[in-house]
Amino acid sequence: MSITDVRGLRELLPEGRVFDDPDVLAAHSRDRATFCPAGTPAALVRARDTGDVAAVLRWAHAHRVPVVPQGARSGLSGAANALDGCVLLSLEKMDAILDIDVDEQLAVVQPGVVNGVLAAAVAEKGLFYPPDPGSRSISTIGGNVSTNAGGMCCVKYGVTGDFVRGLEVVLADGRVMRTGRRTAKGVAGYDLTRLMVGAEGTLGVVTEVTVALRPASAQPLTAVAFFPRVADSARTVSGYLAEGHRPSVLEFMDASSVAAVQQIVDLGFPDGMAAMLLVQSDRGDEAPADLAAFEKVAHARGAAEVVVSDSAAEGEMLMQARRLVGDAHEKLGKALLIDDVCVPRRHLVDLVDGMERIAEENRVQVLCSGHAGDGNMHPVVAFDDSDAEETERAQRAFDAIMQLGLDLGGTITGEHGVGQLKRAWLGRELDEAGLWASRAIKDALDPHHILNPTRVLP
Amino acid sequence: MSITDVRGLRELLPEGRVFDDPDVLAAHSRDRATFCPAGTPAALVRARDTGDVAAVLRWAHAHRVPVVPQGARSGLSGAANALDGCVLLSLEKMDAILDIDVDEQLAVVQPGVVNGVLAAAVAEKGLFYPPDPGSRSISTIGGNVSTNAGGMCCVKYGVTGDFVRGLEVVLADGRVMRTGRRTAKGVAGYDLTRLMVGAEGTLGVVTEVTVALRPASAQPLTAVAFFPRVADSARTVSGYLAEGHRPSVLEFMDASSVAAVQQIVDLGFPDGMAAMLLVQSDRGDEAPADLAAFEKVAHARGAAEVVVSDSAAEGEMLMQARRLVGDAHEKLGKALLIDDVCVPRRHLVDLVDGMERIAEENRVQVLCSGHAGDGNMHPVVAFDDSDAEETERAQRAFDAIMQLGLDLGGTITGEHGVGQLKRAWLGRELDEAGLWASRAIKDALDPHHILNPTRVLP
Repeated sequence: MSITDVRGLRELLPEGRVFDDPDVLAAHSRDRATFCPAGTPAALVRARDTGDVAAVLRWAHAHRVPVVPQGARSGLSGAANALDGCVLLSLEKMDAILDIDVDEQLAVVQPGVVNGVLAAAVAEKGLFYPPDPGSRSISTIGGNVSTNAGGMCCVKYGVTGDFVRGLEVVLADGRVMRTGRRTAKGVAGYDLTRLMVGAEGTLGVVTEVTVALRPASAQPLTAVAFFPRVADSARTVSGYLAEGHRPSVLEFMDASSVAAVQQIVDLGFPDGMAAMLLVQSDRGDEAPADLAAFEKVAHARGAAEVVVSDSAAEGEMLMQARRLVGDAHEKLGKALLIDDVCVPRRHLVDLVDGMERIAEENRVQVLCSGHAGDGNMHPVVAFDDSDAEETERAQRAFDAIMQLGLDLGGTITGEHGVGQLKRAWLGRELDEAGLWASRAIKDALDPHHILNPTRVLP
Repeated sequence: MSITDVRGLRELLPEGRVFDDPDVLAAHSRDRATFCPAGTPAALVRARDTGDVAAVLRWAHAHRVPVVPQGARSGLSGAANALDGCVLLSLEKMDAILDIDVDEQLAVVQPGVVNGVLAAAVAEKGLFYPPDPGSRSISTIGGNVSTNAGGMCCVKYGVTGDFVRGLEVVLADGRVMRTGRRTAKGVAGYDLTRLMVGAEGTLGVVTEVTVALRPASAQPLTAVAFFPRVADSARTVSGYLAEGHRPSVLEFMDASSVAAVQQIVDLGFPDGMAAMLLVQSDRGDEAPADLAAFEKVAHARGAAEVVVSDSAAEGEMLMQARRLVGDAHEKLGKALLIDDVCVPRRHLVDLVDGMERIAEENRVQVLCSGHAGDGNMHPVVAFDDSDAEETERAQRAFDAIMQLGLDLGGTITGEHGVGQLKRAWLGRELDEAGLWASRAIKDALDPHHILNPTRVLP
């Protein structure tokens, strides 16, 4: 472990920015990824403005000190875990909504604004910020931008990056750069905005975000369908979308996930089912027809029961059940490895079949839920981490699922990011030229590798 | 002018790829930008496959020969103009549609496929490729990707880049890189796809494009509104969108443009009007209500006449009028400088007012049409290019319009790209750090600056 002397940094920043109490540092050393190593940081800086961020990076650049940007540390890939001797650069206190422009349908926010807070603020003005990661009640826009976060309504509306119009970014050497625009369109120069989106803090630190908004959608209608066989649920997803429907939500939960949720709140879901789909349409007067079409497709493909909700409240309760999956899995009392593979939709069946095989072969439990409409699934390996041998099997199962995703023409991460967890795997997904180009860009923009080094790129 | 010996290149490529007949070269030395210098190329290569492209770049990289990639040369910024001693690398013969995947709603195409050909091919399968640049009947997907082309339906559906999922790109040294994915989502590593989109051939040569498709939309309904005052048309645009409507088309034409079109086809448009708006809704059963709402907003803001078309054929005729604007301007018999500024929608009024002032001050005619719903306008300076002094005034007017766009918080290019025409202006739009980062990326990926050098970056 390198020893970093942060006295110089303290002198550059106003009072109350730099913290080095070991308990504070320990409390800020990890995001929510499991089985990702975390180092011992030298200091935590709570930035209050862009000037603070620039001062930290200028100093770190000059002294070759690694900097790990952090939001709410709700990430699942270890990208915000401490590195030995690093400065943890927290953007959480930069949490102002700077502007909501109703006419232009955009908002300008600091990175520490919580996703749900922004969504609620714009909803009050009749507008809609679609990206809705499962973590939306705690995760920040800065973190969402840095991972290019997805969510449930991506199937219709797209991911975070599709809503980012422009950024303020502090570069590795402390220079401040504005990217993008406030206009609806713009093609002047390279797309530096998109380059920063999803770069997980390795190319710059985002200090301001301009997001596009949409007019509010109609209150959605909801349906759920239960299937005795998982494959039939997957075929329903493909079949429904192939008919040209554009649901605002199309989610999958396997039997174990449904059972785990029923432990928290009994929704009276039928027994003996292997899979559940949850679908929403927010097309107003056309929503009932959308759901009727879904019901027909599901029944034709072997659904045992389809329930179309006739009240918004019931629909919200069903969505709540889907949102509870993460908590429900945690309540199983086992260690969890949460995966995030995304495959072409026609291979959902193969992915689910393959997971069952992998679970069997490695004698671990694999639960699964996910954004079926996007082919983006979250298999969760549940295991006893007090058993070293079982832990090893769990890790093997986790890896096998990623390999399966790649073999099916998919990606190792649909929305969680690479971080530390999947760094080696990125080397399998990218080809040699892609890896070279990625490294060349990293070297060009951060020549001393101070920005979240050892993350993302293998 | 440097002398380039292309004999070595000829040996590396199959027969019938390399052309150096001066007439052929002259015929391929320019795109459609006016007043952009073009150099004398050493050779034209008509690539037939990725291997041809890789061979050209390996050779050019080794011999430090500039390479100018070309599609249909329908661009408006000079990005495809020859440079002295360059190899013109035409992708036009790589024009195969490799796959249309109905289930996954995507297509894989070579770069030389014409936009309209792709659009028609996917329409036959009940799918929709939205990006519809005015040049769609002649421009290629490769060119659309390289400029991040827009079009009329961007106001609802987004620009080319929003539909590009993945690319095959040949890097400066001839290595072949695959970016992106076939899945709906994916966040593995830096967004190299978006970095290449809009880079105008300065970072790599696109040899394959995977595009996302949508289900076919309903046949649109169309309305046109005529305004005695331009400002009222601009207020109608803002007012209509602020009510939460999402038209599939929302276009503007000024009086001169309407008059020019009427010279080609008499549509019986009323006299004495200063501006016309054309709006479409493709929301099926909800389209009549959408257009009724438009009519109301337009009347409330001073429209003299609003015509809601009740037939698809009439709607298509009105769209045709809009599409004829370019031809109509050319028929004026004057030289034209076509601009492409994009401003926040609320400043459309100021942009139009400012253009009138600029036209007066410089004693040139400025016509204007554009994608009003996006704030993306195409002012056209019409002038007598046999008069050197008037040509100078025209150039001044053209520049003044771009400066006005920037002053209004806009961009120098909404969809045409920077190319050669606006290179100096990019230096005004980007900040110092943004310019530095852009140059660092260029240097990293193309260290010898062989890929379309002197384009885009100042």
